[in-house]
Formats: sequence, structure tokens, C-alpha cells
Amino acid sequence: MQVLEEIKKRGKMVDEAIEKLLPIIQPEELYKASRYLLDAGGKRIRPAMLIIAAESVGGDIQKVLPAAVAIELIHNFTLIHDDIMDQDELRRGHPTVHLKWGLPAAILAGNTLYSKAFEIIAQIDAPPKIISRCICILSKTCADICEGQWMDMEFEKRGSVSENEYMDMVQKKTSVLFATSAMIGGLLGGATNKIAKSLWEAEIKIGVGFQIRDDVLDLIIPEVKIGKRRGNDLMEKKKTLIIIHALKNSNKLYSLSRKASREEIDAAVQQLRDLGSIDYAMDKAVELVEQGKSKLDVLPDSRPKELLMELADYMVTRTY
Amino acid sequence: MQVLEEIKKRGKMVDEAIEKLLPIIQPEELYKASRYLLDAGGKRIRPAMLIIAAESVGGDIQKVLPAAVAIELIHNFTLIHDDIMDQDELRRGHPTVHLKWGLPAAILAGNTLYSKAFEIIAQIDAPPKIISRCICILSKTCADICEGQWMDMEFEKRGSVSENEYMDMVQKKTSVLFATSAMIGGLLGGATNKIAKSLWEAEIKIGVGFQIRDDVLDLIIPEVKIGKRRGNDLMEKKKTLIIIHALKNSNKLYSLSRKASREEIDAAVQQLRDLGSIDYAMDKAVELVEQGKSKLDVLPDSRPKELLMELADYMVTRTY
Repeated sequence: MQVLEEIKKRGKMVDEAIEKLLPIIQPEELYKASRYLLDAGGKRIRPAMLIIAAESVGGDIQKVLPAAVAIELIHNFTLIHDDIMDQDELRRGHPTVHLKWGLPAAILAGNTLYSKAFEIIAQIDAPPKIISRCICILSKTCADICEGQWMDMEFEKRGSVSENEYMDMVQKKTSVLFATSAMIGGLLGGATNKIAKSLWEAEIKIGVGFQIRDDVLDLIIPEVKIGKRRGNDLMEKKKTLIIIHALKNSNKLYSLSRKASREEIDAAVQQLRDLGSIDYAMDKAVELVEQGKSKLDVLPDSRPKELLMELADYMVTRTY
Repeated sequence: MQVLEEIKKRGKMVDEAIEKLLPIIQPEELYKASRYLLDAGGKRIRPAMLIIAAESVGGDIQKVLPAAVAIELIHNFTLIHDDIMDQDELRRGHPTVHLKWGLPAAILAGNTLYSKAFEIIAQIDAPPKIISRCICILSKTCADICEGQWMDMEFEKRGSVSENEYMDMVQKKTSVLFATSAMIGGLLGGATNKIAKSLWEAEIKIGVGFQIRDDVLDLIIPEVKIGKRRGNDLMEKKKTLIIIHALKNSNKLYSLSRKASREEIDAAVQQLRDLGSIDYAMDKAVELVEQGKSKLDVLPDSRPKELLMELADYMVTRTY
């Protein structure tokens, strides 16, 4: 898929900008812990989306690059803290930050990324009015992410969750950061309010599709490829769309402990397949992506517009 | 002291603004956990300082009130996370957030306050150029606080720490938020760059004095009055200026475990008294406050200027 090459190209620019904007300074171990997950890889989909959104309205890549870095920092901040909360031990194929540096260090590493993200975005070379608008959107999004993560954890303790509740949770936990990426890219690139709003609306839908695909990948991709434990969500009792569908269609779902064997995980996944729950979720993901793409119609025809469309498709077809 | 009344008056305005700017919305428990420590009290010294700094340059209290709230939110965010990291169980006379709601909730409650602080400040009714400058200062300060907290924890593990290292740590952990409060108040109130800079420089010094006083209070004030365990810093092996002085003057300091009895704490404190370490630290605090106050000379004479001076004195004479 050509869009992957285009994401990689922009991801490389983002990586170079991270080196410059988040150097390892004193206290060295704090900044090493902050950089660790960033340096461990990641697809850089969010910053690439921000850049392409800016390009789609005629913006300059170099000018929006710091904002793209800020978004990736926010994303990694949420991952570090989520891994603490979910007690995850593996991320991007490496031990999680709290496992490697301990809990206090992981909290601080996350907070440092959070602070640096705002510091970087506040210093962007753009009209102050646009900058304070971007900061307003980003900070609102960060509060949404907290709410979404809270709901996600709260749902783990509940017997059942409705599809609407799941959609609301995922929109906050995952979608808003995609939508913010696209909107900030648009605004900094010179988009009209109407187009900026459409970028937001498009990526809110597409972002939910992304999360559903993520939930599916958790079940079907082996650990060695996805860089984290397979079936993790099942063991954590996450109420994914797949599980919500399965709970509606069966009274007896496998219940996995945190120490489940490979065979137990295989059986649980096979049950979800047999119930049609995985297909159901994927159909929903594709439907949402199509709805999102239609919102992008307002953009003038261009290669970046095509890329945003292809990126949307990639988000629900990716295999890691 | 009259300044206390003036702080209280402004603190009340801040409390009312908190009600409006951080209402309990869905998910309710997340916002309750976020508001809990704020509602448990606190002296509101930082937001009061911000307001008085704005007044000292002719600014309008109502206009800077949201910024004052943002500062108090940031302060409480750091307290919630610090209590997790230091495994503290009591704050402002109440169980800490992580004790009451659990670790994941406490992390999220802190992050929510952090996000809301930036959201509030980004929406202030002021020229966008000033707002993005305030955000730049505040985000830089938040990164400094992370660095300071990191150093504070790292020092706990070390046998000795120099006075310079202590000063550097405290400046980051504590002073910068006071300095930022005064500077943002100044900038939003219409201060020139020169005056805003002086406000910063003054409160950096005074803030160190505040922290030294805090270290002293930890030793001499009974739990019932200070709302947290007495001698906490000793049990956590914090390298306060008192301890740094004592280590230079004795080879045999009492070493307290986390389960130290009242008698053991009394003996350890008496030793620090006998070594002159508490007096040494207090002299230093007063000296720093005097240096800070002299930086305020550039302000035009006014009641708010006097209040800033009195507030500085209060910060090293307070008994809780």
C-alpha cells in the first residue's frame, strides 16, 4: 500500500524533529525514560495524519512538524500511563516504562511528555490566535482521553456495556486524538473553519474504526508481530465491540485469567469467531471509515486528499 | 497578619471560580476524584499570588481569575501524583486520592486537572499573544516540576547531596510554580516585560524560602495541625536543607523507618535542633525572602505591592 510509504516518509521527519525538540538533558534518566517508548518505534500514524491534513489545505510540512511531534508526545504519554493502569508488561515488543524504571519514574516520564507537548505547541511559528485555538482543542482532547480511559476501566468491572456506551468511550479514548491531529494540521495549514470541522468529523468516525481494528488485532495477531501479549483485552475483561456482540449472543463466554495458556486463548478467540463477533466488529469498523471518508469530500482534490482516504482504509486493514 | 485575610478573600473567589470551571460532570467519579483534594482545603497561596501580582500592575481580578484557577489545578495535580510516588497516605487531613480511589483513578484525576488547567488558560479573555506566552511559561514550568520531583526522589537514594543541588531541585520542584503564578498574573494584568521578569525573579527566591519553611514545618508541627504525618520527610529520607546541614555536622544521624514511633521522631528532631540545622535552614529561608523582596522594588508603590511583600514574609513565618 502506497500510503504506508508516505506515512513512513513523514514519520522519519517526525523522528528527526523529536531528536531536536526532546533532547536527552538533565536529569538524564528522566529524559531517557520519557524518550524510551518513542524510540521503541510506533507507526507515527497520528503525526503523519496531522501533516497530511496540513498538506491537504496547502500547508507547509516544516511549519507543522512541531505540532506533529506534540501529538506523538501526547500519544506516548497516554500509553505510558495506560500501561501502568492496565498493569501491562509489554509494549512495542519491549518491557513497559514502569516495568523498566518503576512506577514513580513512569508517572513522571508521562507527565514530562505531556508538558513538553504543550511547550512545543505554544512555541510554533503561527498566528497566536491559531496557536491558542490549537492548545484549547488539544487540552480538551486530553481531558476527553482521561474520561475515555476512566470509562474503559470502569467497563472492565461491569457485566455488560451497550454499543452506545462503547462508542462514546472509544470516541474519547481513541478518536479525539486522531480528530485533533487532523484539525490542528488543518488549522495550522490554513484551513477554513468549515474544512477544519470536516477534518475533525471525518477522523472521529475513522478513529473509532481504528480502535475496533485494534481490538480485533489483539485477538488475531501473534505476540511476536504486535509487540504485546495476544488476547490481552480478554484477560483484562475489556468490553470491546467484539465482546459486547458475543455477550448478546452467548450466555457462556470463556473467561480468561491473566495467566491463561496459549490453548485457552485460542479457544476463547475461536468462540468469538464462531459467534460471528469478530466479523460483526470489522463490518462496523469499515462502515464507520466509509462514513468518515465521505466527510472528506469538502477537501479540494489533491494527492494529500487521496492519502487521507487511503490512510482511513489502512486504519481498518492494517495487520499490526 | 493582615495578608492572611487578603489571601483568604481572594481564595474564596478562586473557590467559587473552581465550582464554575471544574464542575462535576460525567464520568462523575472521575471528576469527584479530581475535585476531592481541591475541596479538602489548601491555602490558595499560589492563585492569590497570581491575583495580587495582577493587581500590582493595575490588572482586573475578574479577568485573571481563570488563570488563578488553572494554577491551583496544576498545584493539586502535582500533589495527587506526588502522593502516589511518595506513598503518602494523608494530605490536608484526609486520605490521599490513591488511597481513596486506587492508583489508576489517582493518575487519571491528576491528568484531568492538568488538562483542564490548560483548557481554562487557553480560553482566557486576553490577547492571544499573551495567552500563548502564558501557556509557554506554564508548560515549561510543568516540565521543571517533573525534573524537580525526579531529583527529589533520586536524592532520597543518595547518601549526600550538596546545597547547590538542593537549591536547584527546590527551584524546580516548588519555586517555578510561584514564579509562574506571579509572572502570569503580571502579564495578564498588563505588566511590562521588565516588571514581569522581576516578578518571576522575586518569587523564584521567595519560593525556595517557602519550601525550606515547609521542610521545617514537617519537623515541628503536630500532625493534627499540618494535616499530614509529622517527620514524613525524615522517614522518606528526603534531603532537605536541614538534613544536608546535619549530615555535614554529624556522622550519626537518627535513621527513621516508615513505622517510626512518636518518641523516635521526637529524638530525631531534637538532634536536628541540637545540631543547629533547623535554625540554619530558617536563616537561609529568611535571607532568600529578603533577596526576593528586593526584586519587587521595581513595582510602583501600592497596596498590592505591600501585600506581595507581606505574602513573602508570611511564606517563611507561617505555622501550617
